[in-house]
Amino acid sequence: MPPPSKPHSTSYKSTQVKVDARIAPGKIMSLLSPDEVQDLLKVGHTELYPLFRRCTLAVLNSGAMEDDAKAVLEAHHNYDIEVIQQSRGIKLALYNAPETAFVDGEIIHGIREHLFSVLRDILYNHKAIKNPHKHLDSNTATTDAVFRVLRHADILKTGQNSPLIICWGGHSISRAEYEYTKKVGYELGLRDLNIGTGCGPGAMKGPMKGATIGRAKQHLPQGRFIGLTEPGIIAAEPPNPIVNELVILPDIEKRLEAFVRVGHGIIVFPGGVGTAEEILYLLGILLHSKNTSLPFPLIFTAPESSRAYFEHIDQFIKKTLGHKAAHCYEIIIGDAPKVARTIKKGITEVFTYRRKHKDAYYFNWLLNIPHVFQQPFEPTHEQITQLEISQDLDTPILAAHLRCIFSAVVSGNVKDSGIRRIEEQGPYKIQGDIKIMQLLDELLKSFVQQGRMKLGQKSYQPCYELVRI
Amino acid sequence: MPPPSKPHSTSYKSTQVKVDARIAPGKIMSLLSPDEVQDLLKVGHTELYPLFRRCTLAVLNSGAMEDDAKAVLEAHHNYDIEVIQQSRGIKLALYNAPETAFVDGEIIHGIREHLFSVLRDILYNHKAIKNPHKHLDSNTATTDAVFRVLRHADILKTGQNSPLIICWGGHSISRAEYEYTKKVGYELGLRDLNIGTGCGPGAMKGPMKGATIGRAKQHLPQGRFIGLTEPGIIAAEPPNPIVNELVILPDIEKRLEAFVRVGHGIIVFPGGVGTAEEILYLLGILLHSKNTSLPFPLIFTAPESSRAYFEHIDQFIKKTLGHKAAHCYEIIIGDAPKVARTIKKGITEVFTYRRKHKDAYYFNWLLNIPHVFQQPFEPTHEQITQLEISQDLDTPILAAHLRCIFSAVVSGNVKDSGIRRIEEQGPYKIQGDIKIMQLLDELLKSFVQQGRMKLGQKSYQPCYELVRI
Amino acid sequence: MPPPSKPHSTSYKSTQVKVDARIAPGKIMSLLSPDEVQDLLKVGHTELYPLFRRCTLAVLNSGAMEDDAKAVLEAHHNYDIEVIQQSRGIKLALYNAPETAFVDGEIIHGIREHLFSVLRDILYNHKAIKNPHKHLDSNTATTDAVFRVLRHADILKTGQNSPLIICWGGHSISRAEYEYTKKVGYELGLRDLNIGTGCGPGAMKGPMKGATIGRAKQHLPQGRFIGLTEPGIIAAEPPNPIVNELVILPDIEKRLEAFVRVGHGIIVFPGGVGTAEEILYLLGILLHSKNTSLPFPLIFTAPESSRAYFEHIDQFIKKTLGHKAAHCYEIIIGDAPKVARTIKKGITEVFTYRRKHKDAYYFNWLLNIPHVFQQPFEPTHEQITQLEISQDLDTPILAAHLRCIFSAVVSGNVKDSGIRRIEEQGPYKIQGDIKIMQLLDELLKSFVQQGRMKLGQKSYQPCYELVRI
Amino acid sequence: MPPPSKPHSTSYKSTQVKVDARIAPGKIMSLLSPDEVQDLLKVGHTELYPLFRRCTLAVLNSGAMEDDAKAVLEAHHNYDIEVIQQSRGIKLALYNAPETAFVDGEIIHGIREHLFSVLRDILYNHKAIKNPHKHLDSNTATTDAVFRVLRHADILKTGQNSPLIICWGGHSISRAEYEYTKKVGYELGLRDLNIGTGCGPGAMKGPMKGATIGRAKQHLPQGRFIGLTEPGIIAAEPPNPIVNELVILPDIEKRLEAFVRVGHGIIVFPGGVGTAEEILYLLGILLHSKNTSLPFPLIFTAPESSRAYFEHIDQFIKKTLGHKAAHCYEIIIGDAPKVARTIKKGITEVFTYRRKHKDAYYFNWLLNIPHVFQQPFEPTHEQITQLEISQDLDTPILAAHLRCIFSAVVSGNVKDSGIRRIEEQGPYKIQGDIKIMQLLDELLKSFVQQGRMKLGQKSYQPCYELVRI
Repeated sequence: MPPPSKPHSTSYKSTQVKVDARIAPGKIMSLLSPDEVQDLLKVGHTELYPLFRRCTLAVLNSGAMEDDAKAVLEAHHNYDIEVIQQSRGIKLALYNAPETAFVDGEIIHGIREHLFSVLRDILYNHKAIKNPHKHLDSNTATTDAVFRVLRHADILKTGQNSPLIICWGGHSISRAEYEYTKKVGYELGLRDLNIGTGCGPGAMKGPMKGATIGRAKQHLPQGRFIGLTEPGIIAAEPPNPIVNELVILPDIEKRLEAFVRVGHGIIVFPGGVGTAEEILYLLGILLHSKNTSLPFPLIFTAPESSRAYFEHIDQFIKKTLGHKAAHCYEIIIGDAPKVARTIKKGITEVFTYRRKHKDAYYFNWLLNIPHVFQQPFEPTHEQITQLEISQDLDTPILAAHLRCIFSAVVSGNVKDSGIRRIEEQGPYKIQGDIKIMQLLDELLKSFVQQGRMKLGQKSYQPCYELVRI
Repeated sequence: MPPPSKPHSTSYKSTQVKVDARIAPGKIMSLLSPDEVQDLLKVGHTELYPLFRRCTLAVLNSGAMEDDAKAVLEAHHNYDIEVIQQSRGIKLALYNAPETAFVDGEIIHGIREHLFSVLRDILYNHKAIKNPHKHLDSNTATTDAVFRVLRHADILKTGQNSPLIICWGGHSISRAEYEYTKKVGYELGLRDLNIGTGCGPGAMKGPMKGATIGRAKQHLPQGRFIGLTEPGIIAAEPPNPIVNELVILPDIEKRLEAFVRVGHGIIVFPGGVGTAEEILYLLGILLHSKNTSLPFPLIFTAPESSRAYFEHIDQFIKKTLGHKAAHCYEIIIGDAPKVARTIKKGITEVFTYRRKHKDAYYFNWLLNIPHVFQQPFEPTHEQITQLEISQDLDTPILAAHLRCIFSAVVSGNVKDSGIRRIEEQGPYKIQGDIKIMQLLDELLKSFVQQGRMKLGQKSYQPCYELVRI
Repeated sequence: MPPPSKPHSTSYKSTQVKVDARIAPGKIMSLLSPDEVQDLLKVGHTELYPLFRRCTLAVLNSGAMEDDAKAVLEAHHNYDIEVIQQSRGIKLALYNAPETAFVDGEIIHGIREHLFSVLRDILYNHKAIKNPHKHLDSNTATTDAVFRVLRHADILKTGQNSPLIICWGGHSISRAEYEYTKKVGYELGLRDLNIGTGCGPGAMKGPMKGATIGRAKQHLPQGRFIGLTEPGIIAAEPPNPIVNELVILPDIEKRLEAFVRVGHGIIVFPGGVGTAEEILYLLGILLHSKNTSLPFPLIFTAPESSRAYFEHIDQFIKKTLGHKAAHCYEIIIGDAPKVARTIKKGITEVFTYRRKHKDAYYFNWLLNIPHVFQQPFEPTHEQITQLEISQDLDTPILAAHLRCIFSAVVSGNVKDSGIRRIEEQGPYKIQGDIKIMQLLDELLKSFVQQGRMKLGQKSYQPCYELVRI
Repeated sequence: MPPPSKPHSTSYKSTQVKVDARIAPGKIMSLLSPDEVQDLLKVGHTELYPLFRRCTLAVLNSGAMEDDAKAVLEAHHNYDIEVIQQSRGIKLALYNAPETAFVDGEIIHGIREHLFSVLRDILYNHKAIKNPHKHLDSNTATTDAVFRVLRHADILKTGQNSPLIICWGGHSISRAEYEYTKKVGYELGLRDLNIGTGCGPGAMKGPMKGATIGRAKQHLPQGRFIGLTEPGIIAAEPPNPIVNELVILPDIEKRLEAFVRVGHGIIVFPGGVGTAEEILYLLGILLHSKNTSLPFPLIFTAPESSRAYFEHIDQFIKKTLGHKAAHCYEIIIGDAPKVARTIKKGITEVFTYRRKHKDAYYFNWLLNIPHVFQQPFEPTHEQITQLEISQDLDTPILAAHLRCIFSAVVSGNVKDSGIRRIEEQGPYKIQGDIKIMQLLDELLKSFVQQGRMKLGQKSYQPCYELVRI
């Protein structure tokens, strides 16, 4: 949904009706041992509490027309949540929760499921994945962790080969772009293609709404609408309640790996720097020598009016990663049916390949993800300065480093920690080959021109400086 | 969907891609005896053919942005349909069918079902209902016919008490009104209320689209989306493919009776004279002395910007039928959640009443419909002239006569036969009590002012003259 | 179940607990128009009443260890049934019904469904099939009637090609034979083959019980257990409640046609003269020149201890109809798994053939049934005397005439009307070629020796005399 | 199934056809991480292998008419099983498996599921339960372990309150007793009551077969047929393939606890010393002061011909544990419908109690099981000698000790380890109060007289001596 630029005045807070409620689990977390109940009761009194509160507030607020995480948190400063014991299980006690999550006093089913998904995953990530006794220093161990989180969240389904399309793109896009994502989603729904996104509004919500209508016209049952998120992003990009399977991955890198392991194809809509980060991540992997024969449908698409976005991206990719990289994707402008037809055809090849190579339909085990793409990247000034950006690098490594640059810009633009770093230490110093620096400069400037850099601010103040070597 | 005012130029026809296809039945008409197959093969060679061709073209065209039946027919003058034998059953052979009905060469499932619904009902109406050996001159026989058509179309479900809300309103409404019907539908969907409409765009399509999203957020399975139409209207108001149960009643009056027998409550959105006709029909019935204790939730609702529409209607009703009539409905302006809450509450009373009086949940047998409301009304100049419009009449009879007036205006405005009559014989002469004539004049003028009288014409040329006695 | 030979003393009647109950319809007959309700209310006051009472009593009594129709009727001489109006539908009021049909005061679900199946079919047969305005004098019309009765009873399922095996055999067989039918049924159930029978105990019940266990071991859902009966036989052979789809065909010949049109293969267990009648009926049809290329799996099977039964039948067939007739069936003794394997293989050919010739899976339209096999045969002494039994006849016609002979013996042995005829006019005079008369004599004598001719009587008094020309 | 007393000759082995096969998982173990696959591949090379081989052989052999574990093992000495990698998962490779587990080369579905249940539970018990880092020394920890094993096996279902009846009794019983267990099962099935047993033939198989037929007559879907077993008993009492949910508990005591925690009521059929052990276990718990207000339906039932068995048990209980203990159960002789009616009524009270006390429907958390009943009892001669058997003990403790006595006799009679102990050290010396010793003597002698002590042996040679203090 296009972001309203209205200021978050006090009147907003005061008119907001808030409710207290007790929510019993549906199918998630309904069967607990006394030990597990004790663990859950403690959540409110551990270091997990702030995360839990923040994520559940995001979920509860997902119906609202608000995508500024900070504003949401402020507007609901007196929101609280508690896990309470209820005979042999638990309930969630909500205090001052946004009324939009409720219908006539009953919580919306999709939101209820998301609340318990949050609880389930935060605890599982903490106990089973982030446990210091578990070493994730190897490639295999990381993939195993991603697999286990997804399986624990019941995302992986055997015996089905129903296709899952991942949709990427900005959460804050123009109305024309939003309408276009709905159209593409509609065409995907007409073709019984399921949809996974990173949650949030904009390009993540449009395809699901469209697909819902497309499926209805085909008299299909509700499809799979999968949301893959992570703690740092869920507040700004809460899951739309249409999402009927939600999982919170432990961090950005595992979320990215989850996208490319469970998706059978990916459609990218216009977005901002974050979308560029995702594109670089995927291209870096697909360019790896072990992945070259692996079919992986990838489409960049936009309405005619946003043709420029992908033209700039395309130029940047060709000039930095080379024309080989450009063979990994297809750009389709203003033709939603063609997008759906093309991705469907691509997916047929994916299934054929998996069958031939005896790989699972539900998880892309054969995709080789170099460890550099799995390691969490913390965008400190030091890390940024040390990143080598050079034509001499192996293309996948260059892609990985460029992806880190975009990740840093996202952080400096919108994340709390990043903004604080910039305030304290000044803009990131990004340095590298003069040619690449120039290309980067052009690309980022085009984002600024298209108004894709930062929300609700009149003129964009860059959080980076490009230093040419 | 708001009507585009674009002229239907030749360029429209030439860019339209047309396809030939053979369509096998789904669950409808799949089990036929050889005799029945022979009957069906003959359809293309009987007097039913023009009706069959017209209705199926409407169904095939429902995806398009076009609501002018005549324009549709012209744009597809070379469209043809044939029933052909296929081993032990039949198929439909389509020639020059609109491409919008297909996805990658496969017909949209909802449209396929509608094609066979049309075939099923046209034949059934012809053989079982319109058969000259069957006399429908009695009240009971008419209701029985409505019951049998609905049962034959598998609309009636025992063992379920899932509520069905009928939505009435114009098929050609403003964008604000259309968006509002979506909002109300969304609130109905959130509350698991099923929707029935008269098919077509505008107020009939909006609630279904909204409800689809509302249901998705509640993680509910696809609900019931019922379309009730009749041969004279289906071309102008084809069923949206979201409709998953379609039935074609034999005529206007049986369609109206079907609405009030299967609906547990009715929501009226803004419309034109047709909507006024529906309101008068229902009020006339509810005011009948045998129905006074029967609960029947009826809500008139519009967005704030269209408040005037129902204010005029309300005034007209109060001054013609009296304040007692105004007790039959509630007007809610600009509050979609309240509409849904109110109708849901009303339906609870309906179910309680049915249980107490041992009436079926699926058919409102207890509602008394006087025979005057069941008799087909043919709006000839003679009929109009003979209609008594007087304060002295019983209120239900007055309502019935006023309903006929509105029906005539609809016909004179938009139906082929009506327009021809006006061209030949001049405007209808509507005569009656001076006071009622004045009120009628004001109401119709307000419709003209609000642009609700006729499509695509600059200034409305009335098809009637009011004659005061 | 092997018949106990206990005499039906008064003590039997006095210990029998009887109950009064009101039974509401399940899915059958739950949606009725007022007219239809009126029709149903009248059933108790028309010529259909005795039939209705007799059939429903049989159904209610099916749990009991009693297969003598007359004894059942006597034991329940004060049983009564009435159709009563219940708000918008009907209920059945039962008086002095056998307690065995109930569990803790609730009627067994399978029995309830059968009661309404009886009502449904009796009325439909009366109104839609036996209607004097409908002429069934042609081959096509008869098949059409069979089709419509089966479709009306919802026996025909499109979109499924799940195989249906018809099991024939005696309702009064030895324990060894009964156990063997269970074993064969068990093997059919293990292979997910559905079962249809003529209802009743013995060879009709054993396969269903066995299949129930076989399906349970394969963790399959309840399969289809279809009972095909007719008014004259249902009292003596009531449907076991395991039967979950019951249909009452109008007469013997339509029931036989239903067997061969809906079954994909037939297994014959030992029986008596009735089983011989069924075999002759089917062989007569399969030997027709138009059916010779049609695959139709037919197996005669018995436990080792009953080997003689089929040896006699086999000899009789070979010597009367010729070795060509013997190619139509396979005899398997004492090997239940082989029976199941063989019929399953045969059915694969049937499906292949239907697919190739575009015939329906659910109804064997391609099977040619000469009209002589469709005409109801009334075994009067005159009819019997006129039957030509001669080697000069076309084989199918000879088979048809022999089938009538067996039908007459069944009637003279066990049917009320037949027994009365014999009492009044003496034994049937069966006349024909000396050779065939001799073979017939031997076969019938072997049945007498094996105790297969008549129940509960010490020495069998033949109801026929063979007259050699 | 009554045990055939045929000697297990070499001819048995030679006629047995054996097959090699590869079995892919169904829903169990279908979604594995690479680590887990590695763990499973190792199973064949660890200390778990003999257990795994033995249990899977029992499962594969369950169709056969053989209940002597040792004979089975010998007859299939060349049977082998291996876990092999299959692309992204595993398969089981079987060598020389009994042909009875297959239908036309396909493994019976129920048996396949059991094979993977065995693998799942053996591994889970080993890793999650028997892990030395987990201390099960407390009451709570043991119950938690039972809960987790059952949940891991998907036995616990929330949102259902469908009743589960546990059936206990001997696996080697007379035909009359076996037929009676089928009748009771039939009555349970008619009433939609699910069945859990300890697996094996006899009283564990009969109720399931009967219930299958009862359910079919009510046109109910397949119910739940739960088998609860443990590694030491599965070889002698393999699960009937009708069992559709199987779980292998880690040891005898946890299996007993599972019975009383998941069952809503218990029916005991005649058996031997093992059945007496189960009765004493349950009475000891029910007599605990904290359980006295807890409803727990318990019925002892037998056909008329086996009335003596429960008369002896009843006397023994009354005289050792007192009349209060006799209030815990009801004895019903020869009346299957009454058994079903009574247990159903009892279960209604259980559900009411659970609802009132907010306990789960799926697990009897409120039942207090003293730790003495949870501690594994190893029947060494020393342990037996140290068991105090005295009237002075608290009744629950006395029951616990008596249960250990019966457990020891079972072991000395039929278990490998027990038989070896007796051979080496002579009969167990059971000592205690003279009065109790006398009662015990009478009871055990009555078992000997009824032929319930040991299989296939002409005269029973006791494995114990009673020493009166």
